[in-house]
Formats: sequence, structure tokens, C-alpha cells
Amino acid sequence: MDQPKLRVGILGATGAVGQKFVELLADHPWFEISVLAASDRSAGKPYREAAHWIGTRPIPPQVADQEVVPISTELDCDFVFSGLSASVAGEIEHQLAEAGYPVISNARNHRMREDVPLLIPEINPDHTALIERQPWRARGGFIVTNPNCSTVGLVCALYPLVKTFGVTQVHVTTLQALSGAGYPGVPSLDATANVIPFIGGEEEKMATEPRKILGKLVDGRVEPAAIQISAQCNRVPVLEGHLECISVKLARAASVEEVRAALQTFRSPIADLQLPTAPDPLLQVFDEPHFPQPRRHAELGRGMTVSIGRIRPCEVFDVKFVALVHNTIRGAAGGAVLNAELLVRQGYLKPRRSLIVAEA
Amino acid sequence: MDQPKLRVGILGATGAVGQKFVELLADHPWFEISVLAASDRSAGKPYREAAHWIGTRPIPPQVADQEVVPISTELDCDFVFSGLSASVAGEIEHQLAEAGYPVISNARNHRMREDVPLLIPEINPDHTALIERQPWRARGGFIVTNPNCSTVGLVCALYPLVKTFGVTQVHVTTLQALSGAGYPGVPSLDATANVIPFIGGEEEKMATEPRKILGKLVDGRVEPAAIQISAQCNRVPVLEGHLECISVKLARAASVEEVRAALQTFRSPIADLQLPTAPDPLLQVFDEPHFPQPRRHAELGRGMTVSIGRIRPCEVFDVKFVALVHNTIRGAAGGAVLNAELLVRQGYLKPRRSLIVAEA
Amino acid sequence: MDQPKLRVGILGATGAVGQKFVELLADHPWFEISVLAASDRSAGKPYREAAHWIGTRPIPPQVADQEVVPISTELDCDFVFSGLSASVAGEIEHQLAEAGYPVISNARNHRMREDVPLLIPEINPDHTALIERQPWRARGGFIVTNPNCSTVGLVCALYPLVKTFGVTQVHVTTLQALSGAGYPGVPSLDATANVIPFIGGEEEKMATEPRKILGKLVDGRVEPAAIQISAQCNRVPVLEGHLECISVKLARAASVEEVRAALQTFRSPIADLQLPTAPDPLLQVFDEPHFPQPRRHAELGRGMTVSIGRIRPCEVFDVKFVALVHNTIRGAAGGAVLNAELLVRQGYLKPRRSLIVAEA
Amino acid sequence: MDQPKLRVGILGATGAVGQKFVELLADHPWFEISVLAASDRSAGKPYREAAHWIGTRPIPPQVADQEVVPISTELDCDFVFSGLSASVAGEIEHQLAEAGYPVISNARNHRMREDVPLLIPEINPDHTALIERQPWRARGGFIVTNPNCSTVGLVCALYPLVKTFGVTQVHVTTLQALSGAGYPGVPSLDATANVIPFIGGEEEKMATEPRKILGKLVDGRVEPAAIQISAQCNRVPVLEGHLECISVKLARAASVEEVRAALQTFRSPIADLQLPTAPDPLLQVFDEPHFPQPRRHAELGRGMTVSIGRIRPCEVFDVKFVALVHNTIRGAAGGAVLNAELLVRQGYLKPRRSLIVAEA
Repeated sequence: MDQPKLRVGILGATGAVGQKFVELLADHPWFEISVLAASDRSAGKPYREAAHWIGTRPIPPQVADQEVVPISTELDCDFVFSGLSASVAGEIEHQLAEAGYPVISNARNHRMREDVPLLIPEINPDHTALIERQPWRARGGFIVTNPNCSTVGLVCALYPLVKTFGVTQVHVTTLQALSGAGYPGVPSLDATANVIPFIGGEEEKMATEPRKILGKLVDGRVEPAAIQISAQCNRVPVLEGHLECISVKLARAASVEEVRAALQTFRSPIADLQLPTAPDPLLQVFDEPHFPQPRRHAELGRGMTVSIGRIRPCEVFDVKFVALVHNTIRGAAGGAVLNAELLVRQGYLKPRRSLIVAEA
Repeated sequence: MDQPKLRVGILGATGAVGQKFVELLADHPWFEISVLAASDRSAGKPYREAAHWIGTRPIPPQVADQEVVPISTELDCDFVFSGLSASVAGEIEHQLAEAGYPVISNARNHRMREDVPLLIPEINPDHTALIERQPWRARGGFIVTNPNCSTVGLVCALYPLVKTFGVTQVHVTTLQALSGAGYPGVPSLDATANVIPFIGGEEEKMATEPRKILGKLVDGRVEPAAIQISAQCNRVPVLEGHLECISVKLARAASVEEVRAALQTFRSPIADLQLPTAPDPLLQVFDEPHFPQPRRHAELGRGMTVSIGRIRPCEVFDVKFVALVHNTIRGAAGGAVLNAELLVRQGYLKPRRSLIVAEA
Repeated sequence: MDQPKLRVGILGATGAVGQKFVELLADHPWFEISVLAASDRSAGKPYREAAHWIGTRPIPPQVADQEVVPISTELDCDFVFSGLSASVAGEIEHQLAEAGYPVISNARNHRMREDVPLLIPEINPDHTALIERQPWRARGGFIVTNPNCSTVGLVCALYPLVKTFGVTQVHVTTLQALSGAGYPGVPSLDATANVIPFIGGEEEKMATEPRKILGKLVDGRVEPAAIQISAQCNRVPVLEGHLECISVKLARAASVEEVRAALQTFRSPIADLQLPTAPDPLLQVFDEPHFPQPRRHAELGRGMTVSIGRIRPCEVFDVKFVALVHNTIRGAAGGAVLNAELLVRQGYLKPRRSLIVAEA
Repeated sequence: MDQPKLRVGILGATGAVGQKFVELLADHPWFEISVLAASDRSAGKPYREAAHWIGTRPIPPQVADQEVVPISTELDCDFVFSGLSASVAGEIEHQLAEAGYPVISNARNHRMREDVPLLIPEINPDHTALIERQPWRARGGFIVTNPNCSTVGLVCALYPLVKTFGVTQVHVTTLQALSGAGYPGVPSLDATANVIPFIGGEEEKMATEPRKILGKLVDGRVEPAAIQISAQCNRVPVLEGHLECISVKLARAASVEEVRAALQTFRSPIADLQLPTAPDPLLQVFDEPHFPQPRRHAELGRGMTVSIGRIRPCEVFDVKFVALVHNTIRGAAGGAVLNAELLVRQGYLKPRRSLIVAEA
């Protein structure tokens, strides 16, 4: 890319997901942070004061003193990343799309909307075609979403099996990191040396989102994949990385070795696009029986790799294994950034000024 | 019981399971600790020196200065509890049975032996009839075992469903406490803020032991129950209490309400025996969606209750829920003590001296 | 006590400290819970709904369905325990004392008031004489406070040394449990595998409160003890129990053996009063170098014992050692209950009705 | 350095410290790993099999398949780093020095030897002159050590104060990470939600090592600094980073602002040498009251920075503050690597072959 960097806005820039966007975009080769937008409470303050910074690396110096602006439909940027909480994301993202902004959202609100792509670039890059059916498209605005963090780990692990053998039924139990609940999130008196066997709304998302992502685009619509999924979700005292124990019933018989081969040899269909945030490979398969572990492997591929281990026969279904996904990178901000990179390559994201000029 | 207390020996008294036996037997109404037996390294020392005591309550004063004796076939007691590790338990327990000692064992070695009961008093109290087929029986010796800690939680939760509706297939994922690995056990650098998705041998035990426990006694033999079980076992940074996420396929259709009722109204078939360690009820069913939690509920019923929560429909099987079992009490030492209490009521355990006198 | 139980109200009954009061008073031989008072948000609800119960034992059944009432000056009880947060405690406690209620408070607001006892029964039981100087005394009301949780551990450990050798200077560094911050308190993302080297206001309290507690009552006033104290306070990922590393400069030279003897042989001056909550002994001295530990020893003496360990020479002062105090029992609710028990024995607490009748 | 890289051997390469050496040297601009030496049990195996790798990044590919060799005096390298445990380090390091190898050691055995530098390059770079007095020097061998991990944090924080105001007395309480105990190290049943108030030998090292490091070289000998230090050392459930609470009595009066300025403006005397591992600045001073925290700041300066916070007046001494040091990088392997870099610049480390040739 010899072009100038695209100028991005971050909605909800002071929250936990917003901070992750700031971290990931600080040195991005294609994007530069131009707008930090947050609630009125934060607006007007320098970012270092407005954000209760929870990262382990310092606030990137180039944004530390940048002023946080209120969320509005007059943001000075080419497109926005939304790290808004679901309680407000639905309405705000809708307004921005209407105002002509591409919205790359991590929020759940529009994920299941028929004309909104629920996008994992390595899996369903063609689903971005749904954008054309969005009502705001004419004015330059649209919405693209990434899936729930646990969904991402599951779908990335399932996809090579879906493609190679077909998948009909899935049992998955998650052991999810504390960071998934944001900040302040889970009280330490609940989390320390404990498990909480419930995460509101999570099991429903895992049962439905994969069907859309793995669905086929037919006549401009997504036909959901015919896979039954049952999820049980738990919060465990881990900082980053959702571990998932997955049992799979295949559509056609396959040995454990064939399954391992399908996972190990999987090559991303978008590898040629050389997206800066795309990991290579997407899947890292471990042979050591006690791997992958969240604390040791969540950061693989700068948090964008999905790790797989313990591939073995299932006494009830066909095969079982564990998958690990970095929930705040691949499963949230990093996934959204990768989505944006795909959209650049596909021509959906470009300098907005040119557009505006063109309109004039 | 107006009789004098039975005098018990503890094999492996200085280990993690042995310490739990000491704790549970310190004030037992029917049993008194008469022998603390351990490896030659510990023998000859007072218990307080020999044992690296890991409990949160102090060493019971009545055993603190008792001398640890070497393991032999000449222990001064009526029967023994075995908290030996599997590497030595097989041979030693065999020798003691042969020497005329009833052996109530927590070790895995003889669990699947055809003539050894794998006993949970509330579920298969009739399986003690297998004792009669043991070769050492004539001399007064026999072996009775309790199941693996995770198996106990699973089977207790399944049993009312097996009885009421029948069960054909089970997926279970465990989140197991650190204490299950004994002491020193899991290094803190592996455990802290992490999950280890592997526990050696655990999944195999969970797949096979329940079939024996839930089996029927026919012509003096156990016919294993025809249930397919697939287990995925994880170590989590929790101190006590294994949590299990269970999905069940029933033999005949039932609503979630019927399943809940079967679990909630289950009454132990041995309630009338009034065994001192038996919890009442066996199962505690929670309605709060975020319960049960290991840190908050493992100690229910002095660690002998199995807690159930989140009963709900399964998208793939029929019903799913979580179960929680205190792994070192109900799942180990406490389960063995309850087994011994049942054997007292059934007449299998009595003062050995009388036996010896009678033989003379 | 053959008298009927005194009827107590708990202010802030739904909070973390209030819940601890409920737990400790559920089976108290002298007191019974008659009023659960909390903010208007909770008032009118049954306790089980109003309180987000965080204990590891279930809500005591006798209060689970009791209605929470709003805080007012017309509470149907003989005296109140205050578990209010400092933001509201000052005013409310003042009003209740004025309305004739004895207020046994855990809040910090009135601790340093000249006419309010800052009471540890084993140390300064005579300080209750300050009550006579309180302006509300005529109407039957008064305020008695217990110290900050960390102060309690420090002062209990210092007192035998103050009495025997005199103490002039103290350095103390605390490692404090999460429960000290209440609920939701410390976010798990801050607490997990981390230390926070700051607890607002704690170091100031530790520098000043001990001087009042260890002070002498002269002419109805407390002359503060002349001890310099420097505290450094840290939050560590522990559930219950503040550990304190203490270095002491004595007024007159003493060997480590003399110091150990002073701590080990210390007998509470109120032992004869046989207060139900008083531990015996107050101090438990450990010889094992790696004890005491919060997880293993905080519960000693049902949480009312202060544990001491690692007594050894100090290279800079005279002696150093560690102390451990259960912060929510001895350091909060349990300390307040013990204060009330002393006040019963001293005649300050009695059935209020008799008072009211007498007034009429 | 346009010269070829120096070829280094790592003694104890499979242990926890050895692994950290491997990590830090994998991409070092001046050094390349040529020998991985370990006990006979590991010798002959490829490194990936011999080492139970505990890092969060994968084993560097260039050493993964390298064969581990037994420790001997015929290692094919220019000098060695020693990550040996103290139980064997003394003798082996001695033999290697005698055989002509420069030994840059992290072990404690020779630290206090009169002719061995106890080196922190930013503080006492001139102490390397002691090398000239070592008996092995003629043959090309010598020993240089780095201090105990906790000592490093303390001394780096004290040094600017020693230089500017003088320091006479120090109280320090440490909260030390689990990684300091190596692997398997602290059992998780001891570490989880707990503090262990004892670390064998640690307090003695903190009382004595700083006096040597801060001492003056007079007539080829180190005159220890006249500072009294009292340390209390605790193990806390943190993965990396020792936090230290320090109170200091100064030789001449200074305000908190002067102290802060001394720490903040401190510039390393070896900054001009541009050592690759040297952090800039050495000290990072935080103003936020709840910083530094081990989990958030231990990695600052790639683990080589010492963080300071909470500078404030001390009620007993003059000033108190907290310091944080990455115990396995700055406090162990990283400190040793920095020592080696200084020795290169000072001419003590060079290709051994040239030496050998010269001898011939």
C-alpha cells in the first residue's frame, strides 16, 4: 500500500475493547487513529485521563494526549471501529451507517441481521457481498460485524472439518478468560480460585452465530449451515484466552489422522491477500497432550492464531479436541481489524474524502 | 451403635488423601484411628513430623504425636483405609486382603476387577455382594473401592435420570481442582491464571467406571450399563471441587421440568441406615444461574453433597446441566468412609479380634 | 446468661460486612437478629433477594426470608451493629445514638473522636469509660468502634511487647486480602496474579489508630501512646486474612527468646469474662518458618485468633515477625461482636425496653 | 560490533534460569548459543526433549533440535553463562574457571568471594577490576556474578539515594513472584490464594549483598558500604516481578521532592557504552498511586527497567517507596547477559580461540 493511511475512529475508545483497538492500531501499516470517541463523561479529556488503562503495555504515546470527542455523526475519519457495549451499540452504529460511515463493529447487536456480514476473513470472505443489500450503502455507510469471541475459536476449528468431511453435531464446553467480561467486569471475590458456570447470552450466540458464518451465500442471502451446536460456557480465573472442549459428529466417517491432517494442512483462502494482521497459519496444532494452555499460547501469532490440541476419538461422536482463542484479540478487536483489512483489499474501505468530493 | 468403635488403619497416612482420612476420622462416631501406616521414609516418626500437613485445619491433636508405622500385614486394627498412590496400592492392598484385612480403598488399581465392588452407597449398595466371590473372603479379608473423584460427581448426577428415564449417551467436560493431583501436585507456574487441558487417565476412568457402578448385579456378576460416555478433563486453578458440564441423551423423552423433578426429589435408598457421613439430600439443586461454584458450594453437606445447577434443554441431546463434587471428600476419603459405614451396617466390617478369637 | 437474648439490628445488612454480621450472629448465644436495615433500594425485599450473598455457607435460614427495612431511628431492637460504608455511616450512626441506640460500629467515621472508644476487648477494655462522656449517653445512646482490620492485627501483636518491654518505633508492611475491599471490590483483572501496592487511607489509619488503642485513660481521656508507626499497605490475591510483616524497636533491650515468651504466654485480661466470641489464646505463635499463611490459618479460633510467626532478630530494629489477622472476622464483624459482648458484661448493653419502660 | 558473534555456552540450559538465557540469547546481536550443557540425564537429547519448556513464547527454532551436551571442561564456546542451581554451581563453575573459561554466573555460590565481582553494570562497573586478582585469570578463566533477584531491585532503587544523600538504614519487605522458585518450584496448593511468609536464605542475601555492590574499590578490594538492611521476604501468587516496599533513612536530610528528583534524573554511568540489553532509563518513576504492579510493569524495558512508585515521607525513617524488578530477567538471566556485555566492552570477553592460538 503506497497510499496514505486510512483515518479511523474508535467508538467506545475508553472501554476494554476500545483500549485493545488503540493498542492494535498504534503501529498499523494501513490505518491511523484519528478519532477517539466515547461517552459524554469522557469527552473533552485527554485519552490518558479518560481511559482507566488496563493494558500491560503503556498507552501508545501518540494517543495519550489526544482529546476524546463525543460520539456523533460528524467524526473526522474514513471509517469507524465500534467497541461499544451492546446497550448502546445498536442505535449508534445504525446512525453512523446512515450518516455514511463504514462501521466495523465488535458489538453483537447487528450480527444476526440478514444483510450484515458476520465475518471471519479466512472463512467467509465472500459474505461481504451482503453489504450491497444494506440500505445505507448508497450514502457510503455500511456495517460489518465480527462474531462473539467464543464463536470465533469454535468456527475456526470447525471450518476445515466442515469443508473436508461435513459436520452435523457439536458439543462444546468453554473455559473463558476474565477479560471477556470487560472492566471492572468479574469481581475478584467471585473469580479467585473459583469457576462461574454461567455467562449471560454466550451459549445462545455459540449455538446460532456459527450457522450464519458457515452458511452459504445463495442469491445474495446466507443459507445457514445445518449444524446442531450445544454450548456450555464457564468463566475461569484466566486473564486472556478462551479454551474450548469440542466434540464433533462428522457427516462422513474419518479417522483421527484424517481429522488432524485436515486441521494441520488448512491454508487460509485469503493468504494471497497478505493482510497485515492475518496469522500464518491460522491454526496451530499441538501434539503435546497438555497443550494448548491459555497462559502459554493465547498470544501465538500475535493473538490471531487459533491453537488446537488433544485431537482424539470421541466415544460418543467422532472426534474431540480442544481449541484456544485469544478472546480480546482474535475474538474481538483483532478480528475487527482483520475484517477492515479484508474490506480494504475488497475495495469497500477507502478514503472518505474522495467519496465526499465525488458526491459534491 | 453402642458398640466400641472399630479400630482403623490408614495406609499412606502422610499423603494428601491420607491426611483427608485423618481429618474425617478424627471425630468419627463409629471409627477410631489406631494405625497410621506409611512408607519406610516416614515410619518411626511422630505423625506431625512425618506428614507435610496441607490442611487448613490443624492436625487433630489425638494423632499429632502418634508414631507412623511401616506398612505390613501385621497392623493392629480392624480394617484399613487405603490412601496409597496407584504405583504401590495394587500389590499392598492385595497382600493385606490376603492377610485377612478388609481394605476400603481409594486407589484405582482394583476398581475394575470383576469381584471388587466399585461402590457408591446411595447408588449400588447391593454390589457389596461381590465381596463373597473374592478369594480372600474366607480369611476375613476383602477389597472394596470407591470411584475416581470425577466419576462420583457424574454418576450421582446421572443416577436419578438413569432410574427414571434411562440414559444412553453422555458428553461431560470437567473443570477439576488442583487438590485432585495431590501434593506437591501441579506446579504453581503451570496452575496460576491458566488451564491445563489434560489429566492423565482421567477420561478413560470416566468412560468406564460409571458403566460398572450403574450396572446390574445378575447371578453374582455386574452387567455394565449400556451408556456411552465421552469425557474431556481439564485442570483449573481451583482448590477444592470438580465442576462438570454434562449433556445427556435420555432413553425416553422427558421435559426439563421432569428432569429437574427427578433430580430434586431423589431420595437415597440407604437413607434409613442413617450412616453418619451420608448427606441428606444427596443432591442439592440450584436455581440461581451462576451456581453451583466450587469455592462456594464444594463444602455443602460437609463435602458429601453433589450440587446440581443450570438444568436446561440441550440443543443436541436432551438436557444439559452442571454438577459439582468435592473431590477430596465425596470423591475420595469421604466416599471411602461412607463405604465403610455401609459395610458396617451390612455386617461386613466388625471387630477383627472377635474374628481372630473365633478362628482360634 | 439465663436472660433472654438481646435483640440486635444490623445497619447495612446487605453489604459485605453486614453479611458477615448475619453469619456470626445466626447462632449467637446472647444476641438474636431482629432488624435487617439497609438502603431504600433494598428495603421491603426479603433478605435473600436484597443481599447478593457472597458467603461460602448458605444464608442462615432464619433470616433468609426476613424483610429488609429502611434505616431509621425507629428500629425494633436493643442495639445496632453498623456495617455501613464510611460515606454514610457518620451521619446515620450519629442520629441513632442521639435517638437512644447503642451503636457498635465497624465504620471508621467516629473512631478517632475523643469520646468514642476504639475498642479491642483484650487490650483496652477500660476505654469503654469514654462512653460516659458522650453527649447521647443520657438518652441511652452511645457509639463504640472497632479499629481498621490491619490495625487490629498489628495492635494485638504489639500489645504484649508494649506491656513487657515498651515499643518506640514500628515498620509494618501489609499483604491484604481482597475481601477487605468489600463487594464487588477489586476487579479480577487487577487482582489476578498481581499485587496492588496501594490501599486508600489504610496507611494513615495504621499510623494513628494504634496510638489511641494503646493509649492510657487519664482523667477520662485517652493519652495516645508515644509510638512511631510507618505502614506500607498492599493488596494481594488472597481471599481472607491480612498478613503483616512487622519490625519493632523496643524501649528496653530484650532477646528474641524473651519476645517470643512475651507473645506466647500472653493471657487476655478479660479471659475470666468468658465472652462467647473471645478466642483462647488470643495469639497463636508458630515455630514453622513458613507459617502462618492466610489460606491455612486465617480461620484459627473461628477467625478471632491472631497468628504470629517467624520471630527473629531485626538487623535494624530489635525484632521482626509476621502477624496474620482474619480481616472480616477479627478485623471487622467479629471484632464488633466481641465489643458488644464486653459491653454486655460491663452493663452497657441491656434490653432497651426496660430502659424505655423505666423512662416512662 | 562488526566482529563475529561470541560463542556462548549455557550451563544448566534445561532449568528455569537456563531457559531464560536461551530466550534472551536467541536473537542477541553480540552472542550466539553454541553449547547447551546440562546434567547427564539431559545430555544427548535434543533440547526440545530435554527441557520441559515453561516459557510463554515457543522454544527458539535455532536451538530446538540442538543436542544437549554434558557439562565438562571441554565446551566449544568462548565463555559460559551459568544457570546452575546452587547445589552444584560452586564446584562446576570453579572447574570451568580453572580450565580457562570466563563464567558469567547467576548462582549464589561465589557472589561473596572477595575476588569475585558482584556486578550491576549501572552501579559498580569498576568492580570488574577484581577479576585481575582471581587465581584463574592467567589461564583466561574468571568468574563474575550477578546479585540475587530481590537484591537487584533494592540496590538499583537505593543507588541514586546513596550517591546523592547517603543511606544508613533500610527496611524492606518483598512480595516475590513464583518464578523465583524455579520449576516445579512452589506447589500450586501452597501458592493459590495464599502468601508464604518465608523464602529460604533470601533475607540474608538482601542484608549482605547490597553492601558489597555499593561498596568502594580501594586498593583492589571492596570496602562494603556501611548500610544496615533488614529484609522480610514473602512469596505471593504472582508469575513474574518482585515488588519491594522500602523505607530508607538518609545520611543527610532531604525532602520527598529531592528524593524523587534523584530517582527520576538518575542516568546510568554506562549509558555511553550502548550495551544492547541496558534499559534506558534504568529507573521508571510512577506518579499513579496504585503503580507499579508486577503483572502490568515487570516487562518494562524488556524486563530490564526497575520501576519505582509511591515515593512519600516515612513516619519513622525519611522516605518510603515501592520498587518492582523482573526477577527472572533483570534479576537473573538478563542481569547476567548485561554483565557479559559490559565485560565485552571492557575487553574481558573475547574469542577464546585467539587466546588458545596465542598460547600455542
